[in-house]
Amino acid sequence: MAKITQNIAAASEHTQGLLSLAKSAQLNAHAPYSGFRVGASVLANDKQSYGGCNVENAAYPLGQCAEAGAISAMVLAGATQIKEVLIVSPNTDFCPPCGGCRQKISEFADRNTLVHLATSEGKIKTLNFADLLPFAFDLDG
Amino acid sequence: MAKITQNIAAASEHTQGLLSLAKSAQLNAHAPYSGFRVGASVLANDKQSYGGCNVENAAYPLGQCAEAGAISAMVLAGATQIKEVLIVSPNTDFCPPCGGCRQKISEFADRNTLVHLATSEGKIKTLNFADLLPFAFDLDG
Amino acid sequence: MAKITQNIAAASEHTQGLLSLAKSAQLNAHAPYSGFRVGASVLANDKQSYGGCNVENAAYPLGQCAEAGAISAMVLAGATQIKEVLIVSPNTDFCPPCGGCRQKISEFADRNTLVHLATSEGKIKTLNFADLLPFAFDLDG
Amino acid sequence: MAKITQNIAAASEHTQGLLSLAKSAQLNAHAPYSGFRVGASVLANDKQSYGGCNVENAAYPLGQCAEAGAISAMVLAGATQIKEVLIVSPNTDFCPPCGGCRQKISEFADRNTLVHLATSEGKIKTLNFADLLPFAFDLDG
Repeated sequence: MAKITQNIAAASEHTQGLLSLAKSAQLNAHAPYSGFRVGASVLANDKQSYGGCNVENAAYPLGQCAEAGAISAMVLAGATQIKEVLIVSPNTDFCPPCGGCRQKISEFADRNTLVHLATSEGKIKTLNFADLLPFAFDLDG
Repeated sequence: MAKITQNIAAASEHTQGLLSLAKSAQLNAHAPYSGFRVGASVLANDKQSYGGCNVENAAYPLGQCAEAGAISAMVLAGATQIKEVLIVSPNTDFCPPCGGCRQKISEFADRNTLVHLATSEGKIKTLNFADLLPFAFDLDG
Repeated sequence: MAKITQNIAAASEHTQGLLSLAKSAQLNAHAPYSGFRVGASVLANDKQSYGGCNVENAAYPLGQCAEAGAISAMVLAGATQIKEVLIVSPNTDFCPPCGGCRQKISEFADRNTLVHLATSEGKIKTLNFADLLPFAFDLDG
Repeated sequence: MAKITQNIAAASEHTQGLLSLAKSAQLNAHAPYSGFRVGASVLANDKQSYGGCNVENAAYPLGQCAEAGAISAMVLAGATQIKEVLIVSPNTDFCPPCGGCRQKISEFADRNTLVHLATSEGKIKTLNFADLLPFAFDLDG
């Protein structure tokens, strides 16, 4: 289980780029109902990064998480695999993806996809996707 | 009720731009389960257009419609109102937004937001959003 | 467009039964995030009525509306068509189904399915489903 | 990590009751799009069991998984905690809950909630919920 907590100063330039993208996405989050603004970014197999923010809805179940937005952007651009994901929380706690987002990520990820969790202060923890969605569901059973 | 069916040749250059964007989004749809590839585009209050395609998931309820992707892109960019939406179907029938997408659109639309439905052959029908989600739900009742 | 506002005293015994079921469902709503407690009931083709309440989730998009619960109960029991739906709001305004629920209802409804909206005070408005989801989406276009 | 694979013959009478309930729910699954019929049951803190089946929708993201139906039934009845969940697959493979359902379960579960996976042939594997949704998301971070 690859789990590393580090300060952003020590993170690779590469991860810092993902954090920077997720933070700028977070600024535009539409979260009037929860007040919980989240930003996400994915690094895809085309070497490009894609951002997303949460988009809440007056009818709560129709809202969309930040990770969903980043995945939409990635698929729109023609990429097909998620190499890394980063999720930045609105506070000093880590904000791991909800189960729904883990399922959405799994459509394009593999066990070794890296998931970086970042706090508002720039603390970063990195996990393998396999640590977040063990015994994954897929239609093939 | 503003309902106009016309051929794309007769549509404004403006609507043709939305169709073109939706069609290029459609090319990247991830629809391995239904085989039903949809493209969407929204024109926002920042005068910019944003595209989206459907992103299906092995666990069907976790999939995302094309309109959701276009809205995510719009919100990510900082826009806050949908002026027009266009949805292009994969066949010769119109593909009106599902109820879930009407709810997602409603978060950023008003009664006069235009909804253009386009077929694969370029036939276009235009409706007002009020015609698609009458008696809209919002948290204020 | 069949739209009738009436007081519950004037409603048929039948509709009063649906209201009573929806109200008792509402008592068990799990709505700690919005505080907006909703109850629903459906009358199915097996002549039975099924209740549901909203079940919210810390990750808002994973919540379920009251109508979804009532539909689950109906399908579980083996019924296949919705004849009537009733939704009771937590306040003095009507709470029309969100777009997502209209889509869920449409799977089992037809144009003439009745949708009753009730307030906490027992005011009732009745619509035809066709008035709530015009130009319905289905996979056949 | 509590993981036990056993044959239904060896399972407790109690677990057999959950399996039986899930299997009868499965018979009424509405799965015309995937053909993948799933049944679920939950044992709640009121000592009662509640069943659910999947309810698909022409607009795939508006479908509901079997677990969601069982949770709706539980909440409707006034129960507030999930002690055990059982999910029965339509084939000889286990069908673990999708990420979305893990999130829905987490609203009412704790780390020790038991999750039983059953195949069509009655093979059963039991996990702790903590094994299925590590690093769970909740609004408190």
